[in-house]
Amino acid sequence: MNGAQSLIRTLVNCGVDVCFTNPGTSEMHFVAALDDVPEMRGILGLFEGVVTGAADGYARIAGRPAATLLHLGPGLANGWANLHNARRAHTPLVNIVGDHALPHKHLDAPLESDIEAIARAVSGWVRTSTSSEAVALDAADAVRASMEGPGQIATLILPADVSWSDARGPAEPTNPAVAGPPQAHRIEAVAAALGDGQPAALLVGGRVVRGEDGLVAAARVAAGTGAKLLCETFPPRLLRGAGVPAVERLGYLSEFAEMQLAGLRHLVVVDCKEPVSFFAYPDKASVLVPDGCQVHHIAEGDIDPVAALTALADELGAPAEVPLQAAGRPEAPTGDLTAQTMAEALGHLLPEGAIVSDEGNTAGLFVSGATAGCPPHDWLTLTGGAIGQGMPLATGAAVAAGDRKVVNLQADGSALYTIQSLWTQAREGLDVTTIILNNQSYAILNMELARVGAGEPGPMALSMLDLTNPVTDFCAVAQGLGVPAERATDAEGFTAALERALAIPGPALVEAMLPPTL
Amino acid sequence: MNGAQSLIRTLVNCGVDVCFTNPGTSEMHFVAALDDVPEMRGILGLFEGVVTGAADGYARIAGRPAATLLHLGPGLANGWANLHNARRAHTPLVNIVGDHALPHKHLDAPLESDIEAIARAVSGWVRTSTSSEAVALDAADAVRASMEGPGQIATLILPADVSWSDARGPAEPTNPAVAGPPQAHRIEAVAAALGDGQPAALLVGGRVVRGEDGLVAAARVAAGTGAKLLCETFPPRLLRGAGVPAVERLGYLSEFAEMQLAGLRHLVVVDCKEPVSFFAYPDKASVLVPDGCQVHHIAEGDIDPVAALTALADELGAPAEVPLQAAGRPEAPTGDLTAQTMAEALGHLLPEGAIVSDEGNTAGLFVSGATAGCPPHDWLTLTGGAIGQGMPLATGAAVAAGDRKVVNLQADGSALYTIQSLWTQAREGLDVTTIILNNQSYAILNMELARVGAGEPGPMALSMLDLTNPVTDFCAVAQGLGVPAERATDAEGFTAALERALAIPGPALVEAMLPPTL
Repeated sequence: MNGAQSLIRTLVNCGVDVCFTNPGTSEMHFVAALDDVPEMRGILGLFEGVVTGAADGYARIAGRPAATLLHLGPGLANGWANLHNARRAHTPLVNIVGDHALPHKHLDAPLESDIEAIARAVSGWVRTSTSSEAVALDAADAVRASMEGPGQIATLILPADVSWSDARGPAEPTNPAVAGPPQAHRIEAVAAALGDGQPAALLVGGRVVRGEDGLVAAARVAAGTGAKLLCETFPPRLLRGAGVPAVERLGYLSEFAEMQLAGLRHLVVVDCKEPVSFFAYPDKASVLVPDGCQVHHIAEGDIDPVAALTALADELGAPAEVPLQAAGRPEAPTGDLTAQTMAEALGHLLPEGAIVSDEGNTAGLFVSGATAGCPPHDWLTLTGGAIGQGMPLATGAAVAAGDRKVVNLQADGSALYTIQSLWTQAREGLDVTTIILNNQSYAILNMELARVGAGEPGPMALSMLDLTNPVTDFCAVAQGLGVPAERATDAEGFTAALERALAIPGPALVEAMLPPTL
Repeated sequence: MNGAQSLIRTLVNCGVDVCFTNPGTSEMHFVAALDDVPEMRGILGLFEGVVTGAADGYARIAGRPAATLLHLGPGLANGWANLHNARRAHTPLVNIVGDHALPHKHLDAPLESDIEAIARAVSGWVRTSTSSEAVALDAADAVRASMEGPGQIATLILPADVSWSDARGPAEPTNPAVAGPPQAHRIEAVAAALGDGQPAALLVGGRVVRGEDGLVAAARVAAGTGAKLLCETFPPRLLRGAGVPAVERLGYLSEFAEMQLAGLRHLVVVDCKEPVSFFAYPDKASVLVPDGCQVHHIAEGDIDPVAALTALADELGAPAEVPLQAAGRPEAPTGDLTAQTMAEALGHLLPEGAIVSDEGNTAGLFVSGATAGCPPHDWLTLTGGAIGQGMPLATGAAVAAGDRKVVNLQADGSALYTIQSLWTQAREGLDVTTIILNNQSYAILNMELARVGAGEPGPMALSMLDLTNPVTDFCAVAQGLGVPAERATDAEGFTAALERALAIPGPALVEAMLPPTL
């Protein structure tokens, strides 16, 4: 048994049995070892941003990590942006980066680079395995590290000779730290503070909003105190739909977020960060918590946030029954195809149990409202702001999804960062329906250009945000990558095309031609 | 005048008047300022790997740096792989990375990351500009730094408030260090050593092989000593063709390189590195210089390598006349379309003055021989081994090329990393003819899988290197991105399609369907 075999066998022992790969020469022993451990499913991506984003999407749905296999520093760099999103999502992810054989490294061969430096900037745990006899234990440590706390990226750097040299055998799983119980004094203090009758809100995210237990606990606290119930702007995974307690997401635009938070005296933050604006703007505040508002945390560090919220609700004597989202779908839309009618069509058709990978950006503005009363579904958002997440995330989510349908709501500009995802969807027969929102523009940047106060933009500036020359034909691109596609130009056509695409038990793409500006 | 305006005006003052961009919100003031400095040409790429590779290709042809404009840590990471290639090419490149406004950084907003750490791993010079009054001088320093020595990446990190705040005005260029004259004692010592009649070779690269002066100097030394004349495996830019002194490139496969170097007692290395194998293999040497061979350097540090070689030739009393490559082209091929007949067609048609961006990998094996006697042309190679360079490099080279034709010889697997390049070629009307070598495989990895001694590969391992499921239709993808394309399946068809594509004064793509294995 060589190092690579002991590594892969260990991963499987630890419950990691999917590996998204884009290998090179230094990873060939790992690739060869895949056939020795048939429980490990290798899934090829044609670009590393697909690989890392898919590993993120897989874990958000499966609730346990996938592994990646990347080739040296450039491969890690190509996958870095979606690792950044996964870091912000607190996704558990075992990120394996092949390296030159250890005696080769000092020669500064063309592909040599400082892998650890790049890895540290995005990982919670980094280790270079230095011997084939240690790599199994290193792998078990990496899996454990990836699941620490809310979850993090554990990067294991794997020199080629560590893969190819003799190893002892696989390692057993090491136990991750278990989340601690709520701290009674903290819960009591927050309950007392909320009792003062002043305006309050609960801002929840992370593990609280991914399942019914957390959402019910949060809704109980809101019902028991009259506090407003808010959700972080970009939750990794949000359960929503008919029969589920609804949460209002904090706005991306700080102007909106400030309105949502205005006048508050208490803000209880659970499993997410205190709100700050996404970007800075001249003469605008970056901190969104209003002056005079006290911020309370009830579950910092290793404490289970859902248990803490439940304890808070109990402490408050909050009712067990909470308001639930009513069922309801929009009618099938007619007329022009706009961001609004596109959203209505999706709300009209979204299947029960769907998983939505949402990188709709500006064009997806109306989708949240139009789908609120659909049967329960999961919503995955762009957690770190690094565009090019939506298609890879949908790809990985579909691997974990069993018979659930994945819908990828995808802005055109962002789609072109990781369009290679479609090939992996075709190859693996993944059940993803992609909706391309083709407004032929980096529309969000047109909006931001106005917001940053840079004056009236000239033709060169506008041309930097304009995708009309040429207009990408996403149907042609998708077909070239093996995914059936059709283009829709009016609301009826889009609704019909979406219905056909959703009926296909595999990947399909619908290109929604939207007005060039919102 | 704000910081962004003073920055762009300074770049133009310093001779940098092309900026390849993929901006985001934090760069909107830079984008707006483009209209205030019309001498600066902004060129949009739809993915950062296109942007950085294009800046590399531009500088390899123009001989002076372009600027980039990237968005925060994820944008830098997306462009990192082609920056790695540019670093290995010693390309001068002013890499501008937008960042959050300085007072926003400590808030750890979703897009916050350690930009400097990622930048340092690929740059020779890194600076974060900390004030709008200093940014003009920072920019002048960045341009100077980029041109130091053989050239390097200078990364200037640009916080949003440094762009939007008031600035004094632009800065004047600062003078780069001038290359020093040859060291006479070093030249005399090497000349004396080469006089011992033992087997010797000259290994040249970098600035030596990009122009006639360097190649003639190298050929004179070879002629004056009987030394073999070799070129580094992956030169950034190699001048070759009829009437030019020919150099033999050192093989990528270490088995071949070892044969080329076998028995040598002297190896004179000029403007490149001592040869090491690209990857390590079990039980094979990584250092390729044979035992007992003395390595001589004649132009280390800041010394002009072409002047040093010329001095060595003079010291040796070498003849002024050297052997030149004879003119000649292959006949138009017939029959099956193979790597061999594809190469013959290219040799039959390659235009005078062409610039070839070569990421042909295994499928390009026969191209070097088939084009050796074509009219003079420049050959750009994959300097750092990070695949996905060929199409962006061709894009940037075409911006600098004037009326010269750019030919991009492009392996299929590598093409899919940065295929978005085609859109920029279409938008800018760039005169690039792309030849996709579609062998439906990571063929080089099939070869490497055998070479690393990992045993007989199983079906899962082979599937990780197999691109047949689905076979990408590059014509559809190209057309979707705005570039006309046709597919060829036999030698005659390919030759005719290539001739048509070369006649188009703008981008065109020919997909050569090659046998799935070489």
